[in-house]
Amino acid sequence: MKYGIAIFPSKKLQDLVNSYRKRYDPHYALIAPHLTLKDPFDVEDEDELKEMTRQIHEISDNIQPFNINVYKVGSFHPVNNVIYFKVKEEERLSKLHEQLHKDELYSERPYTFVPHITIAQKLPDEEHHDVLESMKMMDIDHSEPVDRFQLLYQLENGSWTVYETFHLGKVR
Amino acid sequence: MKYGIAIFPSKKLQDLVNSYRKRYDPHYALIAPHLTLKDPFDVEDEDELKEMTRQIHEISDNIQPFNINVYKVGSFHPVNNVIYFKVKEEERLSKLHEQLHKDELYSERPYTFVPHITIAQKLPDEEHHDVLESMKMMDIDHSEPVDRFQLLYQLENGSWTVYETFHLGKVR
Repeated sequence: MKYGIAIFPSKKLQDLVNSYRKRYDPHYALIAPHLTLKDPFDVEDEDELKEMTRQIHEISDNIQPFNINVYKVGSFHPVNNVIYFKVKEEERLSKLHEQLHKDELYSERPYTFVPHITIAQKLPDEEHHDVLESMKMMDIDHSEPVDRFQLLYQLENGSWTVYETFHLGKVR
Repeated sequence: MKYGIAIFPSKKLQDLVNSYRKRYDPHYALIAPHLTLKDPFDVEDEDELKEMTRQIHEISDNIQPFNINVYKVGSFHPVNNVIYFKVKEEERLSKLHEQLHKDELYSERPYTFVPHITIAQKLPDEEHHDVLESMKMMDIDHSEPVDRFQLLYQLENGSWTVYETFHLGKVR
C-alpha cells in the first residue's frame, strides 16, 4: 500500500490554494492542499506500519511546533510544470523532513527538499508560463503555526485518506 | 467552521464503495467513503475546539476497538435517495455515537442512528430504484476491525480535511 506524509495548512490557506488548483491542478479532487513531508512510499505489512507509526510519533514528540511562512510563487520548470507557494526555510521543518527519511524511515529523495504547497501542475508549457507570470505578480506573505502533520494512504482511484495525526511536541 | 466526525473503513472497503460512488455519488470527490459518527456541526472558536478535542480523546480512550460488519444494502428513500451499506448494530459503536452527542458535545440528530456507509445519493427517483434493485442482489458480508476515527473540517469547496485522529482504547 502507498503511504505519504504531509502537512495540511490552515483552512484559510487551503481555500486560497484551492481557488487556483480548481482550474490548474488535475490532483485537485484527490487530496487537500498540502506541504509534502515524505513522497509516496510502500508499506506492505501491518507490523511494519505499526513500528513506523511508533517511530514517527517519537520524531514528532521531539520537534516543537513551528511557523510556516509562504512568501512567493515558484516553479519547478523545466524539471516539471509545477507552480507552487514557496515556504521559507525553517530549521524545525527541515529537521522533521530529515528525520522522516533517516534510518528505518529511509526512502528515496530524488530532489533536495524545497518546502512548497502546489497550486498548479501538469499544464502544457505555454499555459504553465502564462499562469506562472500572472501568479508571480501576486503579493503573498502569510505566516501560520503548524502543530501537526498526517500520515495518509492512497486508494485505487488515486485519492488519499488520512491514517493518523502526529502532534509536534509531546501533547498527550 | 464546520466540523464532522467519521470512521474511514479499510482501503479494501473504501475501494469497493468508491467503485459505485464514482458513478452514483456527487460527493465522491469531496470525502473518502466513511461512516458518519457526528453530522456537520459548527465550532467558531479555537479554545472551544481544543476543549472539544480533549473531550473526544477522553471518550475514545474509554471505548475499546470493535468490529464493523457490513451485511446488506439499504436505502433512506423516501426521506432521501441515499443508498448505503448497512452496518450491523454494535454496542461500542452505538456508545461512541451516543457519547459524541452528550453534554457539551450536544448537537442535533434529526434521525435515529443508522450506522451506514453511503454508496449512492441524490439520484433521481427512477435511477435510485434501479440502482437499489441491482445492488440489493449483491452478496455482501464483510467484517473488519475499527481502532480509530477522525475529526474533520470542511473547506469552502465542500471537501473535508482531517484535523485529528482518535484511537479507541488508550494507546499512548
